[in-house]
Amino acid sequence: MLFAQIGLSLPAWIHQEIDSSATYPDDETRVALAITLARRNVELRTGGPFGAAVFNGDGQLVAVGVNRVVPQSCSVAHAEMMAFMSAQARLRRFRLNETGSRHILATSAQPCAMCYGASFWAGIDELLIGARAEDVMELSGFDEGPLPADWIGELERRGIRVRRDILRQTAREVFHLYRDSDGSHY
Amino acid sequence: MLFAQIGLSLPAWIHQEIDSSATYPDDETRVALAITLARRNVELRTGGPFGAAVFNGDGQLVAVGVNRVVPQSCSVAHAEMMAFMSAQARLRRFRLNETGSRHILATSAQPCAMCYGASFWAGIDELLIGARAEDVMELSGFDEGPLPADWIGELERRGIRVRRDILRQTAREVFHLYRDSDGSHY
Repeated sequence: MLFAQIGLSLPAWIHQEIDSSATYPDDETRVALAITLARRNVELRTGGPFGAAVFNGDGQLVAVGVNRVVPQSCSVAHAEMMAFMSAQARLRRFRLNETGSRHILATSAQPCAMCYGASFWAGIDELLIGARAEDVMELSGFDEGPLPADWIGELERRGIRVRRDILRQTAREVFHLYRDSDGSHY
Repeated sequence: MLFAQIGLSLPAWIHQEIDSSATYPDDETRVALAITLARRNVELRTGGPFGAAVFNGDGQLVAVGVNRVVPQSCSVAHAEMMAFMSAQARLRRFRLNETGSRHILATSAQPCAMCYGASFWAGIDELLIGARAEDVMELSGFDEGPLPADWIGELERRGIRVRRDILRQTAREVFHLYRDSDGSHY
């Protein structure tokens, strides 16, 4: 019997821990939220050490995501993918910025090959990144997969501004925390 | 209010039209099923012109996927992603081949940048492809996004065999059909 329904969820703690009515005015506060999501996901044992959030151009929070690969048996359930899908479900459109409003993804760590590809289709105007891929590999053992040689240029040529190394040291600490826990490498 | 639930579904016709108990013994029958899914998705107006299917090493069908981007307002809902997520939900594991059993993805057209990245994490041993990326762009206008220069080598070095141009002409016909309909380019 073929399965025809896919259900994914974020942990219930996001409703208690995230202030969805706050404004996140700059790149640092946006990435800080993504890092907080990553850290709480490790501490509360609800998934891997990654967090992401979607904001609109006014700095209002649209959606959040955390890694849910292991608890939901789904290799697609990376933090960035969960944030994109949640944002699109909330706004009821498959391209977040199709109405002309700017949208921003902030992520605690450089997107893997899948999340990188997804960033072209989700309708974002900016990609804000905390830790680098080498931090992820060095500190957690996760494989990030192959990217085009000029991966930032490919995004920027399609109108997606990229800024990285935002709160990089704070972002790296989540991988230390994860390594010191008994987290599995999904 | 943040959304914490994501629900995606395949069209109900898959249960009527797909023989889930059949065996698909070779690369051609597997890609043929993916192309049939793509064609019926266009004809029945349930999404974009793309289909995919996951098989185990015995040629048994594990899961199918069709493009559901527009009807479900989700940029992630490409055929390959739907097939991966459905297969993982059915087998209740995030890496399909973690038990040592071979798994194969057949897709009607070359994976886009996102689906390409997802192929590294889903737990497949073979990737079977119908149409080429240039067929997709030429005939339907869809953008496939940037890939690493040696995208096939990157897969094969990680143990994923790639074979393409399987029933390429039949696969191309789906894009003719789509172009002649009024399908939107999500």
